[in-house]
Amino acid sequence: MAKVRPHTLSGFMELLPARQIQFDRMISIIRESFSLYGFTPLDTPLIEASEVLLAKGGGETEKQIYRFTKGDSDLSLRFDLTVPLAKYVAMNYAHLAFPFRRFQIGKVYRGERAQRGRFREFYQADIDVIGDGRLDIFNDAEVPSIIYRTFTALGLERFQIRVNNRKVLNGFYAMEDLTDKAGDIMRTVDKLEKIGGEKVRAILTDDLGLTGGQAESILRFISIQGSNAQVLSSLESWRGRHALFDQGLDELTAVVKDLAAFGVPEDHFKVDLTIARGLDYYTGTVYETAMLDHPEIGSICSGGRYDNLAEYYTDKQLPGVGISIGLTRLFFVLEDQGYLNDDLNTAPADVLILPMTDGLSPAIQLATSLRTSGIRVQLYSEQKKFKQKMSYADKLGVPYVIFLGEDEIEQDMVSLKNMRTGEQELISAADAVTKIAATLDAAGDAPIRDKV
Amino acid sequence: MAKVRPHTLSGFMELLPARQIQFDRMISIIRESFSLYGFTPLDTPLIEASEVLLAKGGGETEKQIYRFTKGDSDLSLRFDLTVPLAKYVAMNYAHLAFPFRRFQIGKVYRGERAQRGRFREFYQADIDVIGDGRLDIFNDAEVPSIIYRTFTALGLERFQIRVNNRKVLNGFYAMEDLTDKAGDIMRTVDKLEKIGGEKVRAILTDDLGLTGGQAESILRFISIQGSNAQVLSSLESWRGRHALFDQGLDELTAVVKDLAAFGVPEDHFKVDLTIARGLDYYTGTVYETAMLDHPEIGSICSGGRYDNLAEYYTDKQLPGVGISIGLTRLFFVLEDQGYLNDDLNTAPADVLILPMTDGLSPAIQLATSLRTSGIRVQLYSEQKKFKQKMSYADKLGVPYVIFLGEDEIEQDMVSLKNMRTGEQELISAADAVTKIAATLDAAGDAPIRDKV
Repeated sequence: MAKVRPHTLSGFMELLPARQIQFDRMISIIRESFSLYGFTPLDTPLIEASEVLLAKGGGETEKQIYRFTKGDSDLSLRFDLTVPLAKYVAMNYAHLAFPFRRFQIGKVYRGERAQRGRFREFYQADIDVIGDGRLDIFNDAEVPSIIYRTFTALGLERFQIRVNNRKVLNGFYAMEDLTDKAGDIMRTVDKLEKIGGEKVRAILTDDLGLTGGQAESILRFISIQGSNAQVLSSLESWRGRHALFDQGLDELTAVVKDLAAFGVPEDHFKVDLTIARGLDYYTGTVYETAMLDHPEIGSICSGGRYDNLAEYYTDKQLPGVGISIGLTRLFFVLEDQGYLNDDLNTAPADVLILPMTDGLSPAIQLATSLRTSGIRVQLYSEQKKFKQKMSYADKLGVPYVIFLGEDEIEQDMVSLKNMRTGEQELISAADAVTKIAATLDAAGDAPIRDKV
Repeated sequence: MAKVRPHTLSGFMELLPARQIQFDRMISIIRESFSLYGFTPLDTPLIEASEVLLAKGGGETEKQIYRFTKGDSDLSLRFDLTVPLAKYVAMNYAHLAFPFRRFQIGKVYRGERAQRGRFREFYQADIDVIGDGRLDIFNDAEVPSIIYRTFTALGLERFQIRVNNRKVLNGFYAMEDLTDKAGDIMRTVDKLEKIGGEKVRAILTDDLGLTGGQAESILRFISIQGSNAQVLSSLESWRGRHALFDQGLDELTAVVKDLAAFGVPEDHFKVDLTIARGLDYYTGTVYETAMLDHPEIGSICSGGRYDNLAEYYTDKQLPGVGISIGLTRLFFVLEDQGYLNDDLNTAPADVLILPMTDGLSPAIQLATSLRTSGIRVQLYSEQKKFKQKMSYADKLGVPYVIFLGEDEIEQDMVSLKNMRTGEQELISAADAVTKIAATLDAAGDAPIRDKV
């Protein structure tokens, strides 16, 4: 028969078993962490009506969308988890309690140009808090504190959540009479690290037509650095000149104060006035998260405050704040950098039972009893040579093997072999349970990233 | 602004928060159950190249497929989890240990005609065991025993796994010289319950041209009933007349014996000679699972043994056995019948902290300390009247509320209110943890279906 070459599409991540277990462990740590903060899980369809998904219309994203027809229906695959959330909240407004706190971990689709580390199908893990009419600024501090706890639980250490407030930026540009040019200026300022202050100044004055004074003021503003207290204190010198700026500064100050109360160490969050997330719909607090040893990766977790989640669907004013982790990319980077914790037990079972008898009934009973104790058991039933069976155990990477022959059955014992140490002993099934469980407990809380 | 009507596509399940938590609980019970048997989790893309997904070609399924182009690529959404498994195993053959045991829980897509209880996007939960060259018959018993344990863990009681073997059927038809007509005969026999024996006989002789003796023999064969031992014993009377039949009977006998060793009670599995799964690619053991009180639902979990998983992609002989639960449909039926366990805690948090002070720092510290003990905490931070806050707690359905005011903080205590009993007490944070944890432990193993 002619064969079709089995392949997976470019830009679609598919993992071998050990890596898949590590990926799943990452997801389960994130889910557990989000749950501890009282978020409800949500699962929405991968496919939505195009008119719903693209209600906002236009923009960069639309070109990347997987859009197609089926029968009479114009359908699209979701490209993020925020638009489906907006639809869900608008649809189910009457049934939800506000603030509505939801997390969602799921795949999204963007037809990006294929290149290494760029994915067309990738997981996002989002949390959002949606208010009805208004939403306290406290939430803007809680959201990054959750990311701090979550990344720490994953084993990440050298990361930094960077916080800014667009009211501070927009207020500042308004003071300088530059509201119209704010977008162009932010894009220019974004290049500061790459091209340096002199070139930025030249673009501002020569290309964008700012006065020397305006350019000077901008450069002074974005070069504000230091501890969070120092940055906030510097910003105070602009207070009283524009109401929006003052409001933004109050918000930023509140966020910094609450983040400290959440126990987030200052080296893990930093007020950074260069962060704008200009193309997004954020209106207040904005976040990005850098891996300090890998600035080239860009932000692995971004978000912010928005005034109106669902304006395309409803007249209700639904302000919110949220953040999104790009899981597939984060995992790819951890793997690529050799950071994955290879001490994690990635075997599909904790113990492999090798029956050495003809009938399997005693082995089945043993397996059932171990499973009742929560131990993951595979019973090997193929007719193979002993050497092949042991090679299978090795290939799976199971931590333990149990041999069950006539001798063991007669004595009501099992032969338990620790595959790491090679040690083998004849013990009771109950003692085997205790032994295996102890090893698993010790490994149970392993993060997915090596501690360095 | 003109609004777009927010809606979810017909045939796509989207749940309100409490139901979503019940659905997630169902998935987590299934995942845990599958894991105990040493299956490795797999996650494959939702989208595959059409040439890969449709390598088998033709058939009923193809019309239902979501197929589209993006750029130059002809793409399709997966319609089951078996074809992606075949691709995966063929692609990664050299990296896998055989028998390869995987489970996968994920969404699949079929453009079915929209009607109540029919879904176009639905979850399947599959387990498969794939051998390299051969695979022991033991696996054919283990697979339904896992379904028995899983359904029991979900709280289901009145279900029955029905087992047959296509070699028995095909061997029998070969004895009767009816191999060519086996398909038509099986479709006719399938109507036995609906139209009765006399009409079946009439179709067999008049429409299909069987002799009276052949029809008689078929009717006698499919009317074999009784305990599993009785059915097997009746089948023994055909032994020795056809090699395939004898092999099938040996397999069926082995499966029944091992299922008993697995502790599956006989009322939960039954040899049923009318089961054929004719349109599928099964070659030996076949399974269906009936909800005894709702025969109209049809099988909620089906599968069987196949000789060659990946013949469209590789020359390797990869026999396997697997089974698939239709999760979305199962959940729909449980909900529809009022079977969902509404005692399950479906609140997004175990406790809601209501700070009664201006500053939130003490409440944040309390929340952090409770979370460290694994308790899911939401800190309520909105400026609302007390009555609105309590109404929010009610709407969420949280089991506990903690009030934290100046008095409590001064005494280093919290006011803990049990929302079910209404009881409120002033206790230490540590005692609150103990109290809340005790309630959660008691509810922790709740099945998703009410016991009846």
